[in-house]
Amino acid sequence: MTRMRDFSRDHRWLSINTATVRKSRGVDLPLPQIIEACARRGIRAISPWRDQVAAAGLDTISNLVKAHGLELSGYCRGGMFPAADAQGLRTAREDNRRAVDEACELQAACLVLVVGGLPGALAGKAVHKDLALARSQVRDGIGELLEYSRSMRMPLAIEPLHPMYAADRACINTLEQALDVCDELDAAAADGAGPSGPAALGVAVDLYHVWWDPKLKAQIERAGKRRLLAFHVCDWLTPTTDLLNDRGMMGDGVIDIPQIRGWVEDQGGFAGYSEVEIFSIDNWWQRDHGEVLDTCIERHRGAV
Amino acid sequence: MTRMRDFSRDHRWLSINTATVRKSRGVDLPLPQIIEACARRGIRAISPWRDQVAAAGLDTISNLVKAHGLELSGYCRGGMFPAADAQGLRTAREDNRRAVDEACELQAACLVLVVGGLPGALAGKAVHKDLALARSQVRDGIGELLEYSRSMRMPLAIEPLHPMYAADRACINTLEQALDVCDELDAAAADGAGPSGPAALGVAVDLYHVWWDPKLKAQIERAGKRRLLAFHVCDWLTPTTDLLNDRGMMGDGVIDIPQIRGWVEDQGGFAGYSEVEIFSIDNWWQRDHGEVLDTCIERHRGAV
Repeated sequence: MTRMRDFSRDHRWLSINTATVRKSRGVDLPLPQIIEACARRGIRAISPWRDQVAAAGLDTISNLVKAHGLELSGYCRGGMFPAADAQGLRTAREDNRRAVDEACELQAACLVLVVGGLPGALAGKAVHKDLALARSQVRDGIGELLEYSRSMRMPLAIEPLHPMYAADRACINTLEQALDVCDELDAAAADGAGPSGPAALGVAVDLYHVWWDPKLKAQIERAGKRRLLAFHVCDWLTPTTDLLNDRGMMGDGVIDIPQIRGWVEDQGGFAGYSEVEIFSIDNWWQRDHGEVLDTCIERHRGAV
Repeated sequence: MTRMRDFSRDHRWLSINTATVRKSRGVDLPLPQIIEACARRGIRAISPWRDQVAAAGLDTISNLVKAHGLELSGYCRGGMFPAADAQGLRTAREDNRRAVDEACELQAACLVLVVGGLPGALAGKAVHKDLALARSQVRDGIGELLEYSRSMRMPLAIEPLHPMYAADRACINTLEQALDVCDELDAAAADGAGPSGPAALGVAVDLYHVWWDPKLKAQIERAGKRRLLAFHVCDWLTPTTDLLNDRGMMGDGVIDIPQIRGWVEDQGGFAGYSEVEIFSIDNWWQRDHGEVLDTCIERHRGAV
């Protein structure tokens, strides 16, 4: 029997990843308006994206977040470690340190890492095909950033991305692979060892990326409470018409979300926010953001 | 140092999966014409699809294949085991036995299994979300078919499909998972045990589905010569614009094909055909099939 929290009566454990309402009726929605709309609905946590924060100004957002008493279930995102040359690696390193600083200013629970893939692939032209090299640069990049983030007490959450993004967005593609990196770089934090509280290096479990994995339950158990730093929900639609921007609202697709939340909470011991992250260029981003947020609340209570 | 066959001088190890030229200039191309076009170019092997065979008639195709001395690197496809009810399971079972019979008539090297996902998902409406149940039905279905196929001496090749097809096409999504099924249903065939020659149950390694897997090399080695029944090539494009029908020609994408062929031949001991399987609704299916076949030959020699 799985023990899990009852979400049906309120939405105190709902967090909104602000990409979910990046657009309202197809038009860019500034982060301050997103924050106001969340706060009005009693949503207690968000996870904003760096570009949205930059557009409004870090101080502005920091003040708004504090004024509304919002928590950040995460900060999106650091990563993109691989590069074609030393200059590119240096640029990524500096940018990731700034991301840690911003996450600290906003008192985020963790900095989410989308680790990057083959250099150039996101722009349509990979400069090489050496996935092992990219993975090695990712490991080195995380290792280096970890020294800094640890000193700043900002946990890093590696987000394994769906294998369909291996080339251009993230070459860490399973929870097992992410946890292997955690074991290698931060062995002491395996559950049971070291201090309590979140590990300096852990994982973000986004159902969209990992739901298919036959080893998911076992790897959630392996991760355990200290390394399960974030839990993202949405749904997988059939058919899926776009590799990036056709995510479904919880309940509209094929993922057995309550089952996996049960694993995360019971086997993994996770007790944090359930963060809704939906990229949906033809559906949810075309609707009014108020309707989208109301739907997130309803589905959080009934389908998560 | 990886030992692998030299493909640069001829195309004796090239096989054409006939879906690659399913259309010529956007129009359906009947299988007899595909066979003639392959034979004219000295292509020695094909892997036809059941619907193409059915459209032309099994006898017609069987005679044509023999007349041209063509081999079948595989027969596409059996599978689709999960169903919503007992009647659906029975229908799948009977259909799969017919697929074995057809593969025998055509003297295929193996029957490729695309195992199926959640019942109804391919039509856009999954009847349930229980992936574990689907996987259990797949295992039972393969186990049952294996009794028949073994008696007919037709090897079954489980094709792990990319995780983006987990819901609607195949819930076996990694080589490791496929080999776990092989171990469970046909333990004696693990390399080193039993007779020589192809195992009764093995795997089809299609680069499109498995190239991203951090455990790929290890699992290829695990599979070994007896269980590596088929090797399919194409390429992964960046960006990929369609989940099903935007595969790339070898050399046009990001997969390090020679590296993986090296693993398959050296670590795995594979010595069969390299089968080109490209679904490409907006590019290669719009071109003349003669140009497509000529390009396959050229790329087989230079990019595989």
